[in-house]
Order: sequence, then structure tokens, then C-alpha cells
Amino acid sequence: MSYLDKITSPTLLLDEKICRANIKKMADKAARHQMKLVPHFKTAQSREIGSWAKDYGVKEITVSSIKMAEYLSRDSWENIHIAFPFNPLETGKLDEIAENQPISVQIINTQTAQILSDQLKNPVGFFIEIDAGYGRTGVEVTDFGLIEAILLIAKKSDKLNFKGFYLHPGHTYYMSDIPAIYEESRNALSMLKHKYSTEYPELVTRVGDTPGCAVMEDFGDIDEMGPGNFVFYDLMQAELGGCYKTDIAVCLAVPVVDIKKERNEILVHGGGVHLAKDVLIDEDGNKNFGEVVFLNEEGWVIPEERSHLKSISQEHGLVKASDELLAKVKVGDLLGILPVHSCMTADAMREYMTLDGNFVDHAEGISQ
Amino acid sequence: MSYLDKITSPTLLLDEKICRANIKKMADKAARHQMKLVPHFKTAQSREIGSWAKDYGVKEITVSSIKMAEYLSRDSWENIHIAFPFNPLETGKLDEIAENQPISVQIINTQTAQILSDQLKNPVGFFIEIDAGYGRTGVEVTDFGLIEAILLIAKKSDKLNFKGFYLHPGHTYYMSDIPAIYEESRNALSMLKHKYSTEYPELVTRVGDTPGCAVMEDFGDIDEMGPGNFVFYDLMQAELGGCYKTDIAVCLAVPVVDIKKERNEILVHGGGVHLAKDVLIDEDGNKNFGEVVFLNEEGWVIPEERSHLKSISQEHGLVKASDELLAKVKVGDLLGILPVHSCMTADAMREYMTLDGNFVDHAEGISQ
Repeated sequence: MSYLDKITSPTLLLDEKICRANIKKMADKAARHQMKLVPHFKTAQSREIGSWAKDYGVKEITVSSIKMAEYLSRDSWENIHIAFPFNPLETGKLDEIAENQPISVQIINTQTAQILSDQLKNPVGFFIEIDAGYGRTGVEVTDFGLIEAILLIAKKSDKLNFKGFYLHPGHTYYMSDIPAIYEESRNALSMLKHKYSTEYPELVTRVGDTPGCAVMEDFGDIDEMGPGNFVFYDLMQAELGGCYKTDIAVCLAVPVVDIKKERNEILVHGGGVHLAKDVLIDEDGNKNFGEVVFLNEEGWVIPEERSHLKSISQEHGLVKASDELLAKVKVGDLLGILPVHSCMTADAMREYMTLDGNFVDHAEGISQ
Repeated sequence: MSYLDKITSPTLLLDEKICRANIKKMADKAARHQMKLVPHFKTAQSREIGSWAKDYGVKEITVSSIKMAEYLSRDSWENIHIAFPFNPLETGKLDEIAENQPISVQIINTQTAQILSDQLKNPVGFFIEIDAGYGRTGVEVTDFGLIEAILLIAKKSDKLNFKGFYLHPGHTYYMSDIPAIYEESRNALSMLKHKYSTEYPELVTRVGDTPGCAVMEDFGDIDEMGPGNFVFYDLMQAELGGCYKTDIAVCLAVPVVDIKKERNEILVHGGGVHLAKDVLIDEDGNKNFGEVVFLNEEGWVIPEERSHLKSISQEHGLVKASDELLAKVKVGDLLGILPVHSCMTADAMREYMTLDGNFVDHAEGISQ
């Protein structure tokens, strides 16, 4: 029986072969640059996919919430890093996890450093997150006053262990000039490393975005990389040049519920609650919420002529269909949709079906 | 102990009083117009909130997927209507539910009608969904050929029972002229009712959007209304004029993790996986992913000066803060965020906390 026979409702498919190849390729790249790969599991959020990563030498992982850390700590990792400015209200939960699992957090202000120093019962590592131009979060790269105030609090604590500097140049998602952003990131981290390595000879620097980790070949003296999205990739990454569409490891299977040939439109059951609402917008303002692929027993095939979701609402997806697609499809068929942003789609679907019809866990899944 | 003491991570708060007032107001409005209120539970997706609706005379509900129908069928409803073009792959599941729960679906093509007619073992009602200008889904209002082809298949079936015409004028969300859209909708449904009521004297017409149901007072001879969002409302509805911000019944409690006074920015743990990514964009292109309210033991208070989420990513929310807010807030506090689109926020959070600290169920919740 094909996996396709099991599907009656929107289902997130995962091609294990593509996913493993993506992990292997990034692990090889990290090794080639003498960097440690600490993948960000905000994308996969899966213990099983974590076990696949172990096959390629991954020993530490990154997460973006305490909830994810708790879930993934059920497996033994050398370290789990929560790459999010630590929320002091979660100090108790952090302490609980830290009893059995080496864990690190991100600190960007003295208030949080002080609360952790005052309240932690178990040792916890920390990175100082640096903002070198993205503007979302982090200590500004030249704000040595703040960096040293945080380090001073940690120095007086026997629980807070400084690990190094973390930088997420998220503007690689919005600006085309990844090499320029990376030059800035490399320089920022290198400057900090040299400034503080006498006092902290073990300190490491880490960079954390998929677009840069995928396309760059010059990482300077950065020690570690923590990309997340690369395990699945998606249309946004393909547009940024970090992958080919054939590298995308997940695809939403959606039932066809109506066809309007005269308008070249196909209505599918697949909307914002399945894909999330991330969108690519082309130069003419046309929206793309996902692209159609043909499903078969071995997985999916990208059609020659592009068809895409031109609009979505909570449950509805409206496909602008090519003639090729219209000629093949009928009501009651299943189509595949390559997602625009796979992290968000995975979080919305909370479960994966592999091409042999088995289910792979997700941290937010009902079965967990 | 205040409900606030229980919160350490992003939590969706529900003010039961506001929610009940919203339901009561719409039930009163429906009664005033001699219409039946069949609320769309795609928004609340909750058995408990369903029981609140029963207190105001609601006996039938609407849902948007078979999964939601299955979940809500655990309570006894006079009818559950799935307001989504029926997906023929789910005929088996529909039949199972129909064994114990009166249920109806939407049909917009002959293929689906034929499959249901061929395969159903239990009686199922159906509406024909009409498109009178929205363009997302439905039979075009003047396509009598298709309407009659569907009715003919149903007539030969002893399982498919025609209930009437359903119209979702979803363009009330995008265009300001709700009265003009409603005139079109009223005329379309009235024309169809008169054309087919001789043959189907029991047929009813139903309209299904919150903006129209909230602001209109002229429903012509439309028999039923099926709005959904009104149980919670949100910033989008407030912008459309369907509610005041004080009518919004849900709010996301988010921990403050960093404050950048010099930039008037506050970083909170609350992003796309919590709020979803619906956004309001003003005339100058400024984005608004949610607005800040102050939490207290009785619920929340809307500040005099507006602060809003100017950007969100998977877990991060970046607030553009007023001076009033900056003067009050510190790292480790909780703030409330009124959502842009409460249906999507509820679906992302999958659980509610009431102001007495109890949890209310959601169909997609882990505890279900």
C-alpha cells in the first residue's frame, strides 16, 4: 500500500532521503571549514530527525524555546542551546532541565543575567547574542559596557558559564547581499573573540542563519554554525539561492476539492492553518503561498510549468494552475505544495508522514 | 492566586465575560431580524465555548473541517455544518460522524455530489455554496446549469438532502463598502430562494461573514447567519468597524525579554508560532502584528498611547513602544497582545486560559 492511500486530509510529507542529504551536506561543509555544526531544531522540532542528525556527527543542537528544549532533552545531547534572549520567568523550568541535560541560553541584558545568577541551582552556559546590523535582538557589537557588565555578573556566579558570542544575521533573508552581511558578521565576531579570548580562552563564536551558512564559503575564524531551515529548506531559501527546489524535503499533500477550468483555478483543502501565511511577492506584486508538485509513490516531482497558491485563507488554498496541471487533475486527487517557509509549516502541522507512510514526531504534536 | 502568577510562557488569555457578551449580542441581533444564528466554530474550536453559546439559544454550529466536526460532535448539536467545499476523500469519515450526529456539507460541483450519492450510507444535508463576487469558491450565482445538475444528482439519492444556499461574502474583509456587498449578497440569495422555493419549500439561505453580520441591519429575506470571528473579534474587525477594541475577547500574554529604551523597542517572547502572521498595514506601509495591552488581575486595559508589534519572526516579537509603556515595563514582566486575526491565533495556541486561571479546550489542543 502506498503512503498516498493513507491520506484523506492535509498531511505534511517528509522525504527522509532529501532531509538526510541536506544534513549531510551541511555537516560536510562545517567539517570542511573546521566548524562545529549545531543545527537549530526550531525547524524540525523532532526527536527522530534529531537521531538522523546524529548519524552525521551532530552532537549538540539549538532550539528557540524552553518547551522545545524540554522535549528534545529526552534524548541525550552533549548540549542544548536555547537561541532566544532568555525569559527570566522560565528560570525554574531551565533549572529543572539543567539537572539532567547540559544546556545554554542567550543573555542580552544585565537584568536577566542577575536573575539567573541569583536563582539558578544548576550550572547553565550562556552566549551573549550580538547584533551587528540585523536590529531584531542582541547587544550592539560595540557596546562593550553592556558586554562587560553581563560578564561581571557571570564572573561572580558559580552557575553562569560564559561560552561565547552568538550572532544571527537574519537580514540575509531580506537583503540580497549575503557576502556583505557576512563580512560584517565575521568582522564583528572576530573582533570580539580577540578582545575577550585572553580572559576566556575557551570562548567560541557562532553564526546562525541558513541563507549565509548555505551560500558562503568564507567564515573567517567563526567556530560554530547553527542554521535551522536547511534540514528541510523551502521556496524562500530557493529564492535566496541557498538551495534548489529539489532540495526541499517537505511538502504538504492537499486534497483537490474544486476545479474552475475557465479561470485556471483549483481549490484545495490547504490554508493558513496548514502552511502558515508566509508569502513570496514578485516584482509585479503577485503573491505566492506555495508551489504545486505532482505526488507519486516515490515522492514528488516538480512540474515543468509552475502552478502556485495565489491566495489562502484559514482552510482554503486557491491555486493558479498551469494548463499542464489542469489537464491532469480531477476533484478528489491529491496535490503536493512546496512551502514558502517550512519552519512555520512544520509548526502548524505538528507531524510528518514519510514516504513509507510512517509518522515522524514533532514537539508540538498531539501524540507527544 | 492571580491567573498571572501561573504564566511563564506565551499564553492565550480568554475573557469569558467579553466572549459571552459578543455571543449574546449577535444572538440578539439574529433574533431581532428573525434569523437563525449558526455560529462558525472555526474561530473558537472549543466544546466549552460551544456550551456557552448554548446559553444564548444556539442549537446548530458551523465548522470548516471534518476534524473540527468530529471534535465538536462529542456534544449534541441539532446540526453541524461543514462550511467548506466537501473533500470526497473524507466521505468515509463523514459517514461515520453522520451515524450519530446530524450533519451537512457544502457542494459546489457534480463530481463531489456524485461521489457522495454513490458512497454515503447515512443521510447528510447539503448547501450549495454560491459565489456572488468574492471569487474564492462556490457556484456562480447565475450558473443555473450547475445548480440544477447538483440538485438532480441529489434528487436521485436517498442520502443527500438539499438544505439551501450558503454565501460567504469574504470580500467584506478587503473592501470598505460592506453595504454594497450585502446588497449583492441579499439579491443573489433572494433570487435563488424564489427560483427554487416552489420545488424546495423548506430551503433556507445563509450568509457567513463577521464584518457584514456585525455592521449590517438589512438582511432582506436571508434566513440564517453563520459568522465566526465575532465570538472573539480582533484588530482586523475593529479596523473594519465591526467591533471596538474593548470587544476583543482574547489576548496573548507575552513575557518581556529585553528593552531598548533608546530605540523605543521592547522584545517579547511572542511570534508567528503564537500569533500567526496576519498583519495590518497602514497607509504609510507600517506593519502591525498586534497591539499591546496592560494585564492586571481582572484582565486587560487598553493603554492611552498605542504600542504595537512592528515585526515578528518564529518566536520573537518586536514592540514599537510608547513612552507610557517604556516608563512602566521591565524585563520579566508580562504584556498582553491583542491579535490581528484571532481565528489564526487561537489555532496556533490551541488552548485558552481564562481570567480565573482555568484552561478552556481547543480542538487542536494537546490535551484533547
